[in-house]
Amino acid sequence: MSTAHRDAQLVAVAHEMADVARKTVLPYFRSGLSAENKLQIGFDPVTEADRAAERAMRAVLARLRPDDAIVGEEYGPTEGTSGLTWVLDPIDGTRAFISGTPTWGVLIAVSSDNGPILGVIDQPYIGERFVGGAGQAYCEGPAGRQVLATRQTARLDEAVIFTTFPEVGTAEEGAAFRRVAQRCRLTRYGMDCYAYALVAAGQIDLVIEAGLNAYDVHAPIAVIEAAGGIVTDWQGGPAHHGGQVLAAANPVIHAQALALLGAA
Amino acid sequence: MSTAHRDAQLVAVAHEMADVARKTVLPYFRSGLSAENKLQIGFDPVTEADRAAERAMRAVLARLRPDDAIVGEEYGPTEGTSGLTWVLDPIDGTRAFISGTPTWGVLIAVSSDNGPILGVIDQPYIGERFVGGAGQAYCEGPAGRQVLATRQTARLDEAVIFTTFPEVGTAEEGAAFRRVAQRCRLTRYGMDCYAYALVAAGQIDLVIEAGLNAYDVHAPIAVIEAAGGIVTDWQGGPAHHGGQVLAAANPVIHAQALALLGAA
Repeated sequence: MSTAHRDAQLVAVAHEMADVARKTVLPYFRSGLSAENKLQIGFDPVTEADRAAERAMRAVLARLRPDDAIVGEEYGPTEGTSGLTWVLDPIDGTRAFISGTPTWGVLIAVSSDNGPILGVIDQPYIGERFVGGAGQAYCEGPAGRQVLATRQTARLDEAVIFTTFPEVGTAEEGAAFRRVAQRCRLTRYGMDCYAYALVAAGQIDLVIEAGLNAYDVHAPIAVIEAAGGIVTDWQGGPAHHGGQVLAAANPVIHAQALALLGAA
Repeated sequence: MSTAHRDAQLVAVAHEMADVARKTVLPYFRSGLSAENKLQIGFDPVTEADRAAERAMRAVLARLRPDDAIVGEEYGPTEGTSGLTWVLDPIDGTRAFISGTPTWGVLIAVSSDNGPILGVIDQPYIGERFVGGAGQAYCEGPAGRQVLATRQTARLDEAVIFTTFPEVGTAEEGAAFRRVAQRCRLTRYGMDCYAYALVAAGQIDLVIEAGLNAYDVHAPIAVIEAAGGIVTDWQGGPAHHGGQVLAAANPVIHAQALALLGAA
Protein backbone atom coordinates (compact mmCIF):
# COMPACT_ATOMS: atom_id res chain seq x y z
CA MET A 1 0.00 0.00 0.00
CA SER A 2 1.32 3.48 -0.83
CA THR A 3 1.88 5.96 2.01
CA ALA A 4 -0.86 8.18 0.58
CA HIS A 5 -3.27 5.24 0.58
CA ARG A 6 -2.31 4.29 4.12
CA ASP A 7 -2.64 7.91 5.29
CA ALA A 8 -6.09 8.27 3.75
CA GLN A 9 -7.16 5.08 5.47
CA LEU A 10 -5.84 6.28 8.83
CA VAL A 11 -7.70 9.60 8.46
CA ALA A 12 -10.93 7.76 7.63
CA VAL A 13 -10.53 5.45 10.63
CA ALA A 14 -9.79 8.40 12.93
CA HIS A 15 -12.97 10.15 11.77
CA GLU A 16 -15.01 7.03 12.40
CA MET A 17 -13.54 6.77 15.89
CA ALA A 18 -14.22 10.45 16.60
CA ASP A 19 -17.79 10.02 15.37
CA VAL A 20 -18.54 7.11 17.70
CA ALA A 21 -16.78 8.81 20.61
CA ARG A 22 -18.84 11.96 20.07
CA LYS A 23 -22.09 10.01 20.01
CA THR A 24 -21.07 8.02 23.08
CA VAL A 25 -19.88 10.91 25.25
CA LEU A 26 -22.47 13.61 24.56
CA PRO A 27 -25.37 12.03 26.50
CA TYR A 28 -23.19 12.17 29.64
CA PHE A 29 -22.23 15.85 29.22
CA ARG A 30 -24.26 18.20 31.45
CA SER A 31 -26.29 15.18 32.46
CA GLY A 32 -27.07 16.86 35.76
CA LEU A 33 -25.32 14.16 37.72
CA SER A 34 -22.93 16.01 39.94
CA ALA A 35 -20.33 14.89 42.43
CA GLU A 36 -23.00 14.57 45.10
CA ASN A 37 -25.03 12.21 42.94
CA LYS A 38 -21.90 10.23 42.30
CA LEU A 39 -21.42 9.64 46.00
CA GLN A 40 -25.06 8.80 46.54
CA ILE A 41 -25.67 6.45 43.65
CA GLY A 42 -22.17 5.23 42.85
CA PHE A 43 -22.29 6.60 39.32
CA ASP A 44 -19.56 8.87 37.97
CA PRO A 45 -20.64 10.33 34.61
CA VAL A 46 -17.13 11.32 33.52
CA THR A 47 -15.60 7.93 34.20
CA GLU A 48 -18.58 6.20 32.60
CA ALA A 49 -18.34 8.43 29.52
CA ASP A 50 -14.55 8.03 29.37
CA ARG A 51 -14.75 4.24 29.44
CA ALA A 52 -17.71 3.93 27.10
CA ALA A 53 -16.02 6.16 24.52
CA GLU A 54 -12.74 4.25 24.70
CA ARG A 55 -14.59 0.94 24.28
CA ALA A 56 -16.43 2.36 21.24
CA MET A 57 -13.17 3.56 19.68
CA ARG A 58 -11.42 0.27 20.40
CA ALA A 59 -14.28 -1.55 18.68
CA VAL A 60 -13.66 0.50 15.52
CA LEU A 61 -9.96 -0.39 15.67
CA ALA A 62 -10.69 -4.10 16.25
CA ARG A 63 -12.75 -4.05 13.08
CA LEU A 64 -10.64 -1.82 10.82
CA ARG A 65 -7.08 -1.83 12.21
CA PRO A 66 -6.69 -5.10 14.15
CA ASP A 67 -2.89 -5.18 13.71
CA ASP A 68 -2.23 -1.78 15.30
CA ALA A 69 -1.31 -1.34 18.95
CA ILE A 70 -3.46 0.78 21.28
CA VAL A 71 -2.63 2.94 24.28
CA GLY A 72 -5.72 4.32 25.99
CA GLU A 73 -6.23 6.31 29.14
CA GLU A 74 -8.84 3.95 30.52
CA TYR A 75 -7.97 0.42 29.41
CA GLY A 76 -4.19 0.35 29.13
CA PRO A 77 -2.04 -0.99 26.29
CA THR A 78 -3.00 -3.48 23.59
CA GLU A 79 -0.09 -4.93 21.61
CA GLY A 80 0.11 -4.77 17.83
CA THR A 81 2.27 -5.95 14.93
CA SER A 82 2.00 -3.10 12.39
CA GLY A 83 4.42 -0.66 14.00
CA LEU A 84 1.59 1.82 14.50
CA THR A 85 0.01 2.68 17.85
CA TRP A 86 -3.29 4.47 18.42
CA VAL A 87 -3.11 6.78 21.42
CA LEU A 88 -6.52 7.60 22.90
CA ASP A 89 -7.79 10.00 25.53
CA PRO A 90 -11.57 9.73 25.35
CA ILE A 91 -12.12 12.82 27.52
CA ASP A 92 -9.17 15.16 27.88
CA GLY A 93 -10.17 17.78 30.45
CA THR A 94 -12.36 15.87 32.86
CA ARG A 95 -12.54 18.92 35.15
CA ALA A 96 -13.85 20.97 32.24
CA PHE A 97 -16.31 18.18 31.48
CA ILE A 98 -17.74 18.06 35.00
CA SER A 99 -17.99 21.87 35.02
CA GLY A 100 -20.02 21.95 31.82
CA THR A 101 -17.49 24.02 29.83
CA PRO A 102 -17.16 23.08 26.14
CA THR A 103 -13.35 23.02 26.28
CA TRP A 104 -12.65 19.32 26.89
CA GLY A 105 -12.00 17.09 23.92
CA VAL A 106 -11.68 13.61 22.53
CA LEU A 107 -8.03 13.00 21.61
CA ILE A 108 -7.14 10.44 18.96
CA ALA A 109 -3.64 9.95 17.55
CA VAL A 110 -1.83 7.31 15.59
CA SER A 111 1.89 7.19 16.11
CA SER A 112 5.02 5.41 15.02
CA ASP A 113 8.04 4.96 17.27
CA ASN A 114 9.18 8.45 16.23
CA GLY A 115 6.02 10.12 17.46
CA PRO A 116 2.53 10.98 16.25
CA ILE A 117 1.76 10.98 12.53
CA LEU A 118 -1.94 11.89 12.71
CA GLY A 119 -4.03 13.57 15.40
CA VAL A 120 -7.64 14.52 15.99
CA ILE A 121 -8.94 16.92 18.65
CA ASP A 122 -12.72 16.69 18.72
CA GLN A 123 -15.09 18.89 20.75
CA PRO A 124 -18.39 17.02 20.61
CA TYR A 125 -20.68 19.66 22.12
CA ILE A 126 -19.58 22.42 19.73
CA GLY A 127 -19.36 19.87 16.94
CA GLU A 128 -15.84 20.94 16.09
CA ARG A 129 -13.01 18.70 14.90
CA PHE A 130 -9.34 19.60 14.39
CA VAL A 131 -7.40 17.17 12.18
CA GLY A 132 -3.66 17.32 11.54
CA GLY A 133 -1.05 15.02 10.04
CA ALA A 134 -1.06 12.38 7.29
CA GLY A 135 -1.17 15.25 4.79
CA GLN A 136 -4.13 16.99 6.44
CA ALA A 137 -4.52 20.21 8.46
CA TYR A 138 -8.09 21.39 8.82
CA CYS A 139 -10.89 22.17 11.22
CA GLU A 140 -14.52 21.24 10.60
CA GLY A 141 -17.09 22.95 12.77
CA PRO A 142 -19.76 25.62 13.08
CA ALA A 143 -17.90 27.81 10.56
CA GLY A 144 -17.55 25.02 8.01
CA ARG A 145 -14.22 23.57 6.94
CA GLN A 146 -11.12 25.72 7.39
CA VAL A 147 -7.42 25.19 6.83
CA LEU A 148 -5.30 25.13 10.00
CA ALA A 149 -2.24 27.38 9.89
CA THR A 150 -0.32 28.73 12.85
CA ARG A 151 0.56 32.39 13.39
CA GLN A 152 3.87 33.97 12.50
CA THR A 153 4.16 35.98 15.71
CA ALA A 154 7.85 36.72 16.17
CA ARG A 155 7.94 38.49 19.54
CA LEU A 156 6.77 37.41 22.99
CA ASP A 157 5.26 40.86 23.65
CA GLU A 158 2.85 40.15 20.78
CA ALA A 159 2.11 36.59 21.89
CA VAL A 160 -0.95 35.06 23.54
CA ILE A 161 -0.08 32.24 25.94
CA PHE A 162 -2.33 29.62 27.54
CA THR A 163 -2.03 27.08 30.30
CA THR A 164 -4.78 25.17 32.06
CA PHE A 165 -3.94 25.67 35.74
CA PRO A 166 -2.31 28.90 37.01
CA GLU A 167 0.05 26.89 39.23
CA VAL A 168 1.13 24.90 36.10
CA GLY A 169 2.93 22.11 37.99
CA THR A 170 5.54 22.22 40.74
CA ALA A 171 6.59 25.57 42.21
CA GLU A 172 9.67 25.55 39.95
CA GLU A 173 7.60 24.74 36.89
CA GLY A 174 5.17 27.51 37.78
CA ALA A 175 8.05 29.97 38.08
CA ALA A 176 9.39 28.92 34.69
CA PHE A 177 5.96 29.38 33.13
CA ARG A 178 5.66 32.84 34.63
CA ARG A 179 9.06 33.87 33.24
CA VAL A 180 7.57 33.34 29.80
CA ALA A 181 4.02 34.56 30.54
CA GLN A 182 5.24 37.85 32.02
CA ARG A 183 6.75 38.74 28.65
CA CYS A 184 3.60 37.89 26.71
CA ARG A 185 0.81 40.21 25.66
CA LEU A 186 -1.95 38.09 27.14
CA THR A 187 -2.12 35.05 29.43
CA ARG A 188 -5.25 32.92 29.60
CA TYR A 189 -6.21 29.82 31.59
CA GLY A 190 -8.52 26.87 31.72
CA MET A 191 -8.81 25.57 28.16
CA ASP A 192 -7.32 22.05 28.43
CA CYS A 193 -6.72 20.47 25.00
CA TYR A 194 -8.71 23.23 23.33
CA ALA A 195 -5.72 25.56 23.76
CA TYR A 196 -3.59 23.31 21.55
CA ALA A 197 -6.32 23.39 18.91
CA LEU A 198 -6.20 27.20 19.07
CA VAL A 199 -2.46 27.18 18.35
CA ALA A 200 -3.11 25.08 15.26
CA ALA A 201 -5.98 27.35 14.25
CA GLY A 202 -3.71 30.40 14.28
CA GLN A 203 -5.51 32.03 17.21
CA ILE A 204 -2.85 31.89 19.91
CA ASP A 205 0.93 31.48 20.06
CA LEU A 206 2.00 29.37 23.02
CA VAL A 207 0.76 26.65 25.35
CA ILE A 208 3.02 25.64 28.22
CA GLU A 209 2.05 22.82 30.56
CA ALA A 210 3.65 20.28 32.86
CA GLY A 211 2.76 16.88 34.26
CA LEU A 212 1.02 15.69 31.10
CA ASN A 213 0.55 12.08 30.11
CA ALA A 214 1.60 10.74 26.74
CA TYR A 215 -2.05 10.32 25.71
CA ASP A 216 -2.62 14.05 26.46
CA VAL A 217 -0.08 15.22 23.88
CA HIS A 218 0.08 12.86 20.90
CA ALA A 219 -2.97 14.31 19.14
CA PRO A 220 -2.05 17.97 19.90
CA ILE A 221 1.50 17.39 18.59
CA ALA A 222 0.24 16.01 15.28
CA VAL A 223 -2.38 18.74 14.82
CA ILE A 224 -0.05 21.62 15.69
CA GLU A 225 2.88 20.36 13.63
CA ALA A 226 0.63 19.80 10.61
CA ALA A 227 -0.47 23.43 10.94
CA GLY A 228 3.12 24.72 10.97
CA GLY A 229 3.80 24.82 14.70
CA ILE A 230 6.31 23.07 16.89
CA VAL A 231 5.87 21.06 20.09
CA THR A 232 8.75 19.98 22.34
CA ASP A 233 9.47 19.35 25.97
CA TRP A 234 11.04 22.17 28.02
CA GLN A 235 14.53 21.12 26.91
CA GLY A 236 13.67 21.24 23.22
CA GLY A 237 13.44 17.46 22.88
CA PRO A 238 10.52 15.26 21.81
CA ALA A 239 7.30 15.88 23.76
CA HIS A 240 5.37 12.74 22.95
CA HIS A 241 6.35 10.98 26.14
CA GLY A 242 4.41 13.61 28.13
CA GLY A 243 5.66 15.59 31.12
CA GLN A 244 6.59 19.20 30.34
CA VAL A 245 5.21 20.50 27.06
CA LEU A 246 5.92 23.68 25.10
CA ALA A 247 3.68 24.14 22.07
CA ALA A 248 4.46 27.10 19.84
CA ALA A 249 3.04 28.64 16.69
CA ASN A 250 6.44 28.80 14.99
CA PRO A 251 10.14 28.12 15.61
CA VAL A 252 10.96 31.78 16.32
CA ILE A 253 8.53 32.21 19.21
CA HIS A 254 9.37 28.66 20.35
CA ALA A 255 13.05 29.52 20.73
CA GLN A 256 12.27 32.60 22.82
CA ALA A 257 9.97 30.67 25.16
CA LEU A 258 12.41 27.77 25.42
CA ALA A 259 15.27 30.08 26.45
CA LEU A 260 13.19 31.53 29.30
CA LEU A 261 11.93 28.13 30.48
CA GLY A 262 15.52 26.97 30.86
CA ALA A 263 16.78 30.16 32.53
CA ALA A 264 16.22 29.07 36.13
CA MET B 1 -50.94 45.73 28.21
CA SER B 2 -50.77 42.90 30.73
CA THR B 3 -47.43 42.05 32.33
CA ALA B 4 -47.49 38.67 30.58
CA HIS B 5 -48.03 40.38 27.25
CA ARG B 6 -45.26 42.88 27.92
CA ASP B 7 -42.92 40.11 29.04
CA ALA B 8 -43.58 38.04 25.92
CA GLN B 9 -42.86 41.09 23.80
CA LEU B 10 -39.60 41.78 25.62
CA VAL B 11 -38.48 38.16 25.15
CA ALA B 12 -39.26 38.35 21.44
CA VAL B 13 -37.34 41.61 21.06
CA ALA B 14 -34.36 40.20 22.99
CA HIS B 15 -34.25 37.18 20.67
CA GLU B 16 -34.34 39.42 17.62
CA MET B 17 -31.47 41.47 19.04
CA ALA B 18 -29.46 38.35 19.84
CA ASP B 19 -30.07 37.04 16.33
CA VAL B 20 -28.76 40.19 14.64
CA ALA B 21 -25.82 40.43 17.06
CA ARG B 22 -24.88 36.83 16.34
CA LYS B 23 -24.99 37.39 12.59
CA THR B 24 -23.00 40.61 12.91
CA VAL B 25 -20.25 39.35 15.20
CA LEU B 26 -19.50 35.90 13.81
CA PRO B 27 -17.69 37.03 10.63
CA TYR B 28 -15.15 38.84 12.84
CA PHE B 29 -14.48 35.83 15.11
CA ARG B 30 -11.25 33.98 14.26
CA SER B 31 -10.94 36.29 11.28
CA GLY B 32 -7.19 35.84 11.38
CA LEU B 33 -6.63 39.51 12.06
CA SER B 34 -4.40 39.60 15.08
CA ALA B 35 -3.01 42.43 17.14
CA GLU B 36 -0.14 42.82 14.70
CA ASN B 37 -2.54 43.29 11.82
CA LYS B 38 -4.39 45.81 13.90
CA LEU B 39 -1.30 47.95 14.24
CA GLN B 40 -0.40 47.61 10.60
CA ILE B 41 -3.75 48.29 9.00
CA GLY B 42 -5.55 50.26 11.69
CA PHE B 43 -8.30 47.65 12.00
CA ASP B 44 -9.26 46.11 15.31
CA PRO B 45 -11.64 43.20 14.73
CA VAL B 46 -12.97 43.09 18.30
CA THR B 47 -13.79 46.79 18.44
CA GLU B 48 -15.30 46.66 14.96
CA ALA B 49 -17.42 43.66 15.88
CA ASP B 50 -18.41 45.20 19.21
CA ARG B 51 -19.59 48.42 17.59
CA ALA B 52 -21.30 46.80 14.63
CA ALA B 53 -23.25 44.47 16.91
CA GLU B 54 -24.32 47.28 19.23
CA ARG B 55 -25.51 49.34 16.25
CA ALA B 56 -27.47 46.35 14.95
CA MET B 57 -29.11 45.80 18.34
CA ARG B 58 -29.90 49.50 18.73
CA ALA B 59 -31.58 49.44 15.32
CA VAL B 60 -33.91 46.68 16.53
CA LEU B 61 -34.78 48.74 19.61
CA ALA B 62 -35.36 51.91 17.56
CA ARG B 63 -37.90 49.98 15.52
CA LEU B 64 -39.60 47.89 18.22
CA ARG B 65 -38.99 49.62 21.57
CA PRO B 66 -38.37 53.31 20.78
CA ASP B 67 -39.49 54.49 24.23
CA ASP B 68 -36.99 52.39 26.20
CA ALA B 69 -33.66 53.73 27.39
CA ILE B 70 -30.38 52.08 26.31
CA VAL B 71 -27.04 51.65 28.06
CA GLY B 72 -24.44 50.06 25.82
CA GLU B 73 -20.76 49.37 26.25
CA GLU B 74 -19.79 51.06 23.00
CA TYR B 75 -22.17 53.97 22.42
CA GLY B 76 -23.17 55.20 25.87
CA PRO B 77 -26.63 55.99 27.20
CA THR B 78 -29.79 56.77 25.24
CA GLU B 79 -32.64 58.23 27.30
CA GLY B 80 -36.12 56.74 27.34
CA THR B 81 -39.59 57.36 28.76
CA SER B 82 -40.93 53.85 29.47
CA GLY B 83 -39.08 53.18 32.71
CA LEU B 84 -37.24 50.28 31.06
CA THR B 85 -33.58 50.29 30.09
CA TRP B 86 -31.83 47.86 27.75
CA VAL B 87 -28.31 47.07 28.93
CA LEU B 88 -26.03 45.79 26.17
CA ASP B 89 -22.55 44.31 26.04
CA PRO B 90 -22.10 43.19 22.43
CA ILE B 91 -18.94 41.19 23.21
CA ASP B 92 -18.39 40.30 26.83
CA GLY B 93 -14.95 38.69 27.05
CA THR B 94 -12.95 40.51 24.40
CA ARG B 95 -9.77 38.71 25.52
CA ALA B 96 -11.53 35.39 24.95
CA PHE B 97 -12.71 36.66 21.57
CA ILE B 98 -9.24 37.63 20.38
CA SER B 99 -7.88 34.29 21.60
CA GLY B 100 -10.42 32.30 19.62
CA THR B 101 -12.05 30.62 22.64
CA PRO B 102 -15.82 30.13 22.41
CA THR B 103 -16.45 31.52 25.91
CA TRP B 104 -17.27 35.17 25.16
CA GLY B 105 -20.87 36.17 24.78
CA VAL B 106 -23.38 38.76 23.68
CA LEU B 107 -25.12 40.15 26.77
CA ILE B 108 -28.60 41.63 26.50
CA ALA B 109 -30.71 42.69 29.46
CA VAL B 110 -33.75 44.83 30.03
CA SER B 111 -34.00 46.38 33.45
CA SER B 112 -36.19 48.55 35.62
CA ASP B 113 -34.82 50.81 38.35
CA ASN B 114 -34.80 47.78 40.66
CA GLY B 115 -32.52 45.73 38.44
CA PRO B 116 -32.72 43.36 35.50
CA ILE B 117 -36.02 41.69 34.60
CA LEU B 118 -34.84 39.75 31.55
CA GLY B 119 -31.42 38.64 30.40
CA VAL B 120 -29.87 36.83 27.45
CA ILE B 121 -26.36 35.34 27.29
CA ASP B 122 -25.67 34.29 23.72
CA GLN B 123 -22.62 32.38 22.47
CA PRO B 124 -22.76 32.84 18.68
CA TYR B 125 -20.03 30.35 17.65
CA ILE B 126 -21.53 27.45 19.61
CA GLY B 127 -25.00 28.65 18.71
CA GLU B 128 -26.09 28.58 22.33
CA ARG B 129 -28.48 31.00 24.04
CA PHE B 130 -29.32 31.26 27.75
CA VAL B 131 -32.54 33.16 28.49
CA GLY B 132 -33.78 34.05 31.97
CA GLY B 133 -36.44 36.33 33.43
CA ALA B 134 -39.86 37.53 32.29
CA GLY B 135 -41.18 34.09 33.14
CA GLN B 136 -38.51 32.24 31.17
CA ALA B 137 -35.49 30.10 32.14
CA TYR B 138 -34.09 28.02 29.32
CA CYS B 139 -31.09 27.32 27.15
CA GLU B 140 -31.29 26.68 23.40
CA GLY B 141 -28.23 25.18 21.78
CA PRO B 142 -26.55 22.10 20.37
CA ALA B 143 -28.48 19.87 22.78
CA GLY B 144 -31.84 21.41 21.92
CA ARG B 145 -33.95 23.36 24.40
CA GLN B 146 -33.39 22.73 28.09
CA VAL B 147 -34.77 24.20 31.29
CA LEU B 148 -32.27 26.18 33.36
CA ALA B 149 -32.17 25.23 37.04
CA THR B 150 -29.34 25.85 39.48
CA ARG B 151 -27.79 23.21 41.71
CA GLN B 152 -28.70 22.60 45.35
CA THR B 153 -25.11 22.20 46.53
CA ALA B 154 -25.13 22.98 50.24
CA ARG B 155 -21.43 22.79 51.16
CA LEU B 156 -18.39 24.63 49.82
CA ASP B 157 -16.35 21.41 49.78
CA GLU B 158 -18.78 20.11 47.15
CA ALA B 159 -18.82 23.35 45.16
CA VAL B 160 -17.23 24.26 41.82
CA ILE B 161 -16.13 27.90 41.67
CA PHE B 162 -15.11 30.02 38.68
CA THR B 163 -13.48 33.36 38.11
CA THR B 164 -11.98 34.75 34.93
CA PHE B 165 -8.57 36.02 36.07
CA PRO B 166 -6.62 34.25 38.86
CA GLU B 167 -5.67 37.62 40.38
CA VAL B 168 -9.44 38.51 40.47
CA GLY B 169 -8.96 42.25 41.15
CA THR B 170 -6.87 44.06 43.73
CA ALA B 171 -4.58 42.10 46.04
CA GLU B 172 -7.25 42.29 48.77
CA GLU B 173 -9.96 41.12 46.41
CA GLY B 174 -7.74 38.26 45.27
CA ALA B 175 -7.18 37.21 48.87
CA ALA B 176 -10.92 37.28 49.54
CA PHE B 177 -11.57 35.13 46.49
CA ARG B 178 -8.96 32.62 47.60
CA ARG B 179 -10.53 32.36 51.06
CA VAL B 180 -13.61 31.00 49.32
CA ALA B 181 -11.87 29.04 46.56
CA GLN B 182 -9.61 27.17 49.02
CA ARG B 183 -12.72 25.65 50.59
CA CYS B 184 -14.21 24.57 47.26
CA ARG B 185 -13.88 21.23 45.53
CA LEU B 186 -12.69 22.69 42.23
CA THR B 187 -11.57 26.12 41.01
CA ARG B 188 -11.55 26.98 37.32
CA TYR B 189 -10.57 30.08 35.37
CA GLY B 190 -11.04 31.91 32.11
CA MET B 191 -14.71 31.56 31.16
CA ASP B 192 -15.90 35.19 31.19
CA CYS B 193 -19.73 35.45 31.00
CA TYR B 194 -19.96 31.77 30.13
CA ALA B 195 -19.33 30.94 33.80
CA TYR B 196 -22.54 32.74 34.80
CA ALA B 197 -24.43 30.75 32.19
CA LEU B 198 -23.02 27.57 33.75
CA VAL B 199 -24.39 28.56 37.17
CA ALA B 200 -27.83 28.98 35.62
CA ALA B 201 -27.47 25.68 33.79
CA GLY B 202 -26.83 23.82 37.04
CA GLN B 203 -23.24 22.92 36.15
CA ILE B 204 -21.29 24.98 38.68
CA ASP B 205 -21.99 26.65 42.01
CA LEU B 206 -20.17 29.96 42.35
CA VAL B 207 -18.71 32.77 40.27
CA ILE B 208 -16.82 35.50 42.11
CA GLU B 209 -15.43 38.49 40.25
CA ALA B 210 -14.45 42.11 40.88
CA GLY B 211 -14.15 45.26 38.84
CA LEU B 212 -17.13 44.50 36.62
CA ASN B 213 -19.17 47.07 34.75
CA ALA B 214 -22.95 47.28 35.04
CA TYR B 215 -23.34 46.02 31.48
CA ASP B 216 -21.29 42.92 32.41
CA VAL B 217 -23.75 41.78 35.07
CA HIS B 218 -27.33 42.72 34.17
CA ALA B 219 -27.90 39.78 31.83
CA PRO B 220 -26.14 37.23 34.11
CA ILE B 221 -28.20 38.42 37.10
CA ALA B 222 -31.49 37.92 35.24
CA VAL B 223 -30.51 34.52 33.85
CA ILE B 224 -29.16 33.15 37.14
CA GLU B 225 -32.05 34.42 39.28
CA ALA B 226 -34.59 33.00 36.83
CA ALA B 227 -32.86 29.62 37.23
CA GLY B 228 -33.09 29.75 41.03
CA GLY B 229 -29.73 31.30 41.88
CA ILE B 230 -28.76 34.49 43.64
CA VAL B 231 -26.39 37.30 42.61
CA THR B 232 -25.22 40.04 44.97
CA ASP B 233 -22.21 42.22 45.57
CA TRP B 234 -19.66 41.10 48.17
CA GLN B 235 -21.70 42.75 50.95
CA GLY B 236 -24.91 40.96 50.03
CA GLY B 237 -26.44 44.02 48.36
CA PRO B 238 -27.62 44.50 44.77
CA ALA B 239 -25.02 43.64 42.14
CA HIS B 240 -26.47 45.38 39.12
CA HIS B 241 -24.29 48.44 39.51
CA GLY B 242 -21.21 46.29 38.80
CA GLY B 243 -18.02 46.14 40.86
CA GLN B 244 -17.69 43.06 43.06
CA VAL B 245 -20.02 40.23 42.13
CA LEU B 246 -20.90 36.98 43.89
CA ALA B 247 -23.12 34.66 41.86
CA ALA B 248 -24.34 31.52 43.60
CA ALA B 249 -26.45 28.52 42.73
CA ASN B 250 -28.60 28.87 45.84
CA PRO B 251 -28.94 30.94 49.03
CA VAL B 252 -27.22 28.34 51.23
CA ILE B 253 -23.96 28.27 49.28
CA HIS B 254 -24.25 32.02 48.75
CA ALA B 255 -24.29 32.67 52.49
CA GLN B 256 -21.19 30.55 53.04
CA ALA B 257 -19.24 32.32 50.30
CA LEU B 258 -20.43 35.74 51.46
CA ALA B 259 -19.22 35.11 55.01
CA LEU B 260 -15.73 34.25 53.80
CA LEU B 261 -15.54 37.20 51.39
CA GLY B 262 -16.24 39.54 54.28
CA ALA B 263 -13.86 37.86 56.75
CA ALA B 264 -10.77 39.97 55.97
